[in-house]
Amino acid sequence: MLADLAAHTHQRSYAEGDTLCHQPDVAHTVWLTMSGWVKLTRETLDGSEAVWDVLGAGHLVGLETLMPDYRYTTRAVAVEPVTTLAISHAALRRITESHPPFALALLGHSLRQQESEQLEIEHRTHQTAPQRIGCFLLRLAKAPISGSMTLNLPFDKGLLAARLGMQPETFSRALARLKQDTGIGLQGAQVTIQDVAQMHKYVCGPCSGSYPCQPCNIEVGG
Amino acid sequence: MLADLAAHTHQRSYAEGDTLCHQPDVAHTVWLTMSGWVKLTRETLDGSEAVWDVLGAGHLVGLETLMPDYRYTTRAVAVEPVTTLAISHAALRRITESHPPFALALLGHSLRQQESEQLEIEHRTHQTAPQRIGCFLLRLAKAPISGSMTLNLPFDKGLLAARLGMQPETFSRALARLKQDTGIGLQGAQVTIQDVAQMHKYVCGPCSGSYPCQPCNIEVGG
Repeated sequence: MLADLAAHTHQRSYAEGDTLCHQPDVAHTVWLTMSGWVKLTRETLDGSEAVWDVLGAGHLVGLETLMPDYRYTTRAVAVEPVTTLAISHAALRRITESHPPFALALLGHSLRQQESEQLEIEHRTHQTAPQRIGCFLLRLAKAPISGSMTLNLPFDKGLLAARLGMQPETFSRALARLKQDTGIGLQGAQVTIQDVAQMHKYVCGPCSGSYPCQPCNIEVGG
Repeated sequence: MLADLAAHTHQRSYAEGDTLCHQPDVAHTVWLTMSGWVKLTRETLDGSEAVWDVLGAGHLVGLETLMPDYRYTTRAVAVEPVTTLAISHAALRRITESHPPFALALLGHSLRQQESEQLEIEHRTHQTAPQRIGCFLLRLAKAPISGSMTLNLPFDKGLLAARLGMQPETFSRALARLKQDTGIGLQGAQVTIQDVAQMHKYVCGPCSGSYPCQPCNIEVGG
């Protein structure tokens, strides 16, 4: 089964701004991201762009195309140079249909994503804007429980605001507030968290995830 | 396969306030809701209750327990008298593992739920509070495209506010605003929408769902 899958998978790279797939095209490929950030967007009825997610390494793009009618439900665009493993949709479908353990693994993946999205919905209600930024930083850094750390913002602040569901002005105010409340250092894209334990305390109270959070240690995306 | 599933499924009813399952208990049952509303909640680290969803008829409760380690990830409580089909977890797992088409159907279900949750995340950013209430009403009513209609709020306003991710005061203000902007009638729990087409116009602009929306015509739950 793995040999079959490998025979229908090959490495594919994308330059900044390249589109992997358009909604609602019929699927040809499902991607496993290896490096770089991929933005998922949808267009609203009134014509504006809604950012659904920004996915880092280790995510599946286009898995929703295993649902009949096998169409992409988002547009996926490389935010920077991106490398992927591109899997033939037809092969993935055939293998999923004929190998129950593989179908179960994908079901498990999808159910975990659902839980992660429910947590995101919860955060948008129960966390403040500064807490949501702090939460993103801790997950991005796969932060330890204590000590200090330095990390870089992964993409520009406009996209980060959209990923977190904030207007750019709200994001700027919230970042200033986070700095004031927790003493983080900000220099360009570089963020220094002097006291990770204090940041956890500042961020994690209104969250129902496990503590220290497992999703944090797996992925930032959706 | 269907006979096997039916042999391990039976009807079970719950009174208002009854708990179907606790997080993080090991799974014994997965439920298909037949009538009545079921509330899914989680407890945050600081001890408050986060409402994850309120599910009407036709939803699966506890499907996440097909992920290893087979535990419930929410508490499910009957908001009113509820009837369900209770499916043995062990049987569901066995059947899913041995029938690829069944596993694929569950995968499709989960992927659709993921899309529905992403849309909920989008709404929390792009729709105003009055629009979110209007959207809920249209979906609840499986609203036609035009004409007028009357419906009843399905559960108390406090829970509805929590379901929509609003503080009770925000909800009250938003409902008053919705009434002012669209001329809906409110009498106790009864809502009259005089002009459904106008309500769609008021609500659906900032949404990236299909129009008229398919999720609306399937389910209210996340």
